[in-house]
Amino acid sequence: MIYLDNAATTPVFPSAAAAAMDAMTENYGNPSSIHKAGQAAKKVLYDARKTLVPLARGFSAENIILTSGGTEANNLAVAGVLKGKIRQGGSVFLSATEHASVTEAVKEFSKYFNIVFFEPDRGGHITAKEIESKLTKDAVFVSLMLVNNETGVINDIDSIKPALKRLGADAVVHSDCVAAFGKVALPSTADVDLISVSGHKINAMKGVGALYVKCGVKLKPIIFGGGQQNAMRSGTENVPAAASLAAAAKELFADFDGVKARYEALYDKARKLLESLDFVRINTSEPSSKAVLNVSVPGIPSEVMVRFLQDKDIFVSPASACSSNKGGGSAVLAAMRLPDELRKSAVRISFGRQNEESDVDALYAAIKEAAAHFRICEAK
Amino acid sequence: MIYLDNAATTPVFPSAAAAAMDAMTENYGNPSSIHKAGQAAKKVLYDARKTLVPLARGFSAENIILTSGGTEANNLAVAGVLKGKIRQGGSVFLSATEHASVTEAVKEFSKYFNIVFFEPDRGGHITAKEIESKLTKDAVFVSLMLVNNETGVINDIDSIKPALKRLGADAVVHSDCVAAFGKVALPSTADVDLISVSGHKINAMKGVGALYVKCGVKLKPIIFGGGQQNAMRSGTENVPAAASLAAAAKELFADFDGVKARYEALYDKARKLLESLDFVRINTSEPSSKAVLNVSVPGIPSEVMVRFLQDKDIFVSPASACSSNKGGGSAVLAAMRLPDELRKSAVRISFGRQNEESDVDALYAAIKEAAAHFRICEAK
Repeated sequence: MIYLDNAATTPVFPSAAAAAMDAMTENYGNPSSIHKAGQAAKKVLYDARKTLVPLARGFSAENIILTSGGTEANNLAVAGVLKGKIRQGGSVFLSATEHASVTEAVKEFSKYFNIVFFEPDRGGHITAKEIESKLTKDAVFVSLMLVNNETGVINDIDSIKPALKRLGADAVVHSDCVAAFGKVALPSTADVDLISVSGHKINAMKGVGALYVKCGVKLKPIIFGGGQQNAMRSGTENVPAAASLAAAAKELFADFDGVKARYEALYDKARKLLESLDFVRINTSEPSSKAVLNVSVPGIPSEVMVRFLQDKDIFVSPASACSSNKGGGSAVLAAMRLPDELRKSAVRISFGRQNEESDVDALYAAIKEAAAHFRICEAK
Repeated sequence: MIYLDNAATTPVFPSAAAAAMDAMTENYGNPSSIHKAGQAAKKVLYDARKTLVPLARGFSAENIILTSGGTEANNLAVAGVLKGKIRQGGSVFLSATEHASVTEAVKEFSKYFNIVFFEPDRGGHITAKEIESKLTKDAVFVSLMLVNNETGVINDIDSIKPALKRLGADAVVHSDCVAAFGKVALPSTADVDLISVSGHKINAMKGVGALYVKCGVKLKPIIFGGGQQNAMRSGTENVPAAASLAAAAKELFADFDGVKARYEALYDKARKLLESLDFVRINTSEPSSKAVLNVSVPGIPSEVMVRFLQDKDIFVSPASACSSNKGGGSAVLAAMRLPDELRKSAVRISFGRQNEESDVDALYAAIKEAAAHFRICEAK
């Protein structure tokens, strides 16, 4: 099986699975229990935060909130800030290419705030120019993903804070870094106040994410109860999942340059091979994370291509996995004003650390075969 | 190590850990992915719901919402109903002994509803008499836990629906069954509309719970995004945790009568032994789940007793684990109007399926030793 849908989710690596297993069967206490069994579990959480904190400069361990995943982290960032600013009102900015867990969370506050969208350029990027032309002095919250989950493009998030400063606007800046995590460096507190990450995109288990919160940023909880995590996220912490997140991150960032070089090699090879086919259109433009390559084969609908590749044991996605629940195709590609024939035939190829260059060869051969099978045209 | 804090959390049983492991490393797809790897993961979720559904009569598999735990399930029940009834207003009823994840979630709506508490009797029970005397015709939501997490007592939840019917009140009835799950039978749709359960109290992993929703009950989501679970709970489902919940439930309910008999044997023995000590007060009264025995040794503060027992490798809790985050002691025992000296010295002994009768002997000996050590009085 050649799994090239790593942007949807990833296999859990042995070190991360072993860490989860240990927390299930050995350090299984409740971190809120005052006895040693509880404190041992609390130490697992402490160690997990310690592993995460240096990955984004300027944040501190006590301000990392563990969540049930990237969606909850994004929801907490949005609602956690906006609930505290309802009386104040103002404008909320986000990109038209955000993940639904940001967009839908913002929509819940549409009664109270003016909502403004940054539009992508033709390549899918949210540029400094677009950001600067849209931001206004009454901005209270800005949310912009660092890397887009469907195309892999990198947005100009470092232009937000300077633009806000010039305007004299006092807004909280959030970045959904779920697609960026483990592929490019996370932003620092110089650029953002809040960062969301998710475990299952970096070979940790599903069910865990984190929200990095810059010291001093005021947040209101969205889940209430026993007051865990300084009352910012109640509920018994998912210790096994947190342990797996930390183990996966530790392994990944021990050789981050090596990992990035590997992604780049896979990406460059795939891009070069697929660019050589005149029936393939490349929808990912640079700068990008090198972990996602979005392509279209006009004439072969996305779902048809996904199934054709699946029959060859190659797994890719049409747009994002999440968007399959909503129907109507990719909102990201629509925001890019991609022609209909490209949108309807787009597939997302996303690399993982387990992939080999031979996987790319197999993909290339299969896409050529698909074109021949569906008589799109002759392969070059 | 003698772990008698199973109401706080439980060790993950081998079958449940293996199920989680399989979903991490084999069936690791994203359930929203349309390819086979995704559909295999989706099947794991389907099977998990199929395992859960017969445990509470009248509910159907498509109406079981998987959550990140009991806290989120309780929050979703409360906010999911109340968000839809803000315009209507009315009265919300809950017991003074609910878990904080219900109480705090209700508090968020205190601007919009009249909130009424059922008070426990001296034994800690919320009785039919109390329920019937408090409920009013304008009731829109009633939340009552089946089993109390700190004392193990069983409340009269089956008196709610008949009382509402007599009043002609159209209220949604929720029961937090986190402490009841795996100890007593879950209620049916004849008695309740919503049931919360949690995995990590029945030897599954942390980070997963479920909300059973009666067909036709209108709920609004509290987590927004990709539209997973019919848009009732967005976010990539925690497949490994769901698999572990199902595996633990399957094993538990394969011999539920045997499990209950075992709890009863442990409970009866512990109660009989501790009742024989005249310096021990028993705070749990019948009917109870037989999984929790709350006792006080006046003169030995709860934390002191917990640490004394810990030195003998015996693990128990003062009140609940969650309440340790809040300070101020047990709200449940306070609501029971337990004398100060009993409240300050209460410990919760909670049994698990891994416990043996010899664990109870060790506990009994250790409590006698504690009394001697702190010169409370002579053991009988």
